[in-house]
Amino acid sequence: MKKKAAIILSGCGVYDGAELQESVLALYFLEKNGFVCSFFAPDIEQFHVINHATGKEMQEKRNVLTEAARIARGKISPLSAYCATDYDALCLPGGFGGAKNLSDFAFKGAECTVLPEFAAAAKQTIAAGVPILALCIMPAVIAQFSSGAKLTLGSSAANKEALDSMGAKGVISVSASEVVEDTEMKIVSVPCYMEDATVTELAEGIEAGVRALVALCSR
Amino acid sequence: MKKKAAIILSGCGVYDGAELQESVLALYFLEKNGFVCSFFAPDIEQFHVINHATGKEMQEKRNVLTEAARIARGKISPLSAYCATDYDALCLPGGFGGAKNLSDFAFKGAECTVLPEFAAAAKQTIAAGVPILALCIMPAVIAQFSSGAKLTLGSSAANKEALDSMGAKGVISVSASEVVEDTEMKIVSVPCYMEDATVTELAEGIEAGVRALVALCSR
Repeated sequence: MKKKAAIILSGCGVYDGAELQESVLALYFLEKNGFVCSFFAPDIEQFHVINHATGKEMQEKRNVLTEAARIARGKISPLSAYCATDYDALCLPGGFGGAKNLSDFAFKGAECTVLPEFAAAAKQTIAAGVPILALCIMPAVIAQFSSGAKLTLGSSAANKEALDSMGAKGVISVSASEVVEDTEMKIVSVPCYMEDATVTELAEGIEAGVRALVALCSR
Repeated sequence: MKKKAAIILSGCGVYDGAELQESVLALYFLEKNGFVCSFFAPDIEQFHVINHATGKEMQEKRNVLTEAARIARGKISPLSAYCATDYDALCLPGGFGGAKNLSDFAFKGAECTVLPEFAAAAKQTIAAGVPILALCIMPAVIAQFSSGAKLTLGSSAANKEALDSMGAKGVISVSASEVVEDTEMKIVSVPCYMEDATVTELAEGIEAGVRALVALCSR
């Protein structure tokens, strides 16, 4: 019997959406470890569009769901259709989309507000005791809904403080592939590209995170 | 001493660019098997833009290099800068971008023409004896430059015929992860998402393809 995982995406591209490499490797290691995966994304306009070759803002508008569908090869549902109890686990790949589209953490840090639709999804997931794998920046986006949870955003002391002031118990972890587990709250966090990692290190962290998630699913 | 691989992308998204999952998994398995990777893409307008959630064409213009930079996290060079002798191997991920942006195979099949800049890159790579890993649709895009090479586009008899009529020796292979090697021409082809594969099967094929590429590099 396959387990079911939901993956919530925030667009398609590290600077204005979901981090592609994290998203694809999460999909791969989840499937490899026995999950059937379903993608979700909010049907909203992106905060902005970044030319990823130059780093400059483009005068365009793009939709988060429409762009996220590129990662999902078209098989994606609006976040409004997400129901936590349909799934055994929730995976949240990182990228600036988490901090620009799903929240305004990129601009306001610990004072951030979270997209109501995403907040509802996070709250129902935590309330239902469904384990969460939060990659890269995503622990910051769920911190205010997981009071007291042990979470990491990598090696930055400022980011640890931001987690603390949002009610979490921030942990400084030194490598991209270091897995931080809160077995009580059932949240696994991995720094991923919060650190300057190779793709192999990225994959190691995501694979270790998925294994920790599997263990939480059978608790 | 690390080996160097070039990866040529055709955009960012299966229906109008490079297949994301193939691109990221190729990067991962190349790096895991000892390659340092560099990305390239042509600095040209995409043939069109497809809404990947609906499958419909969007009234937008996008640039192949700019969009491919999303996969590469910004570290990408124009295809015009590619020099085959700088690399130990060349990897070509699939997606409709190969058949719409790098060539017009999607519309003309065996009668296709290839983007001159890509044709030049393919020709110098083959002339230099640099091994090539061609995923998914990409064997079709290099067939006319690798006369007599044993290539596959998966299980489609029509696609085998198209390869044959472009001068290659088409092979029907039945699974997404079946690797077809031409050790003389130093070309490895893998059907990948030409078949209806799971992500795990996709990864198996790409990993096996990379291993075959490694063996060719040391011949």
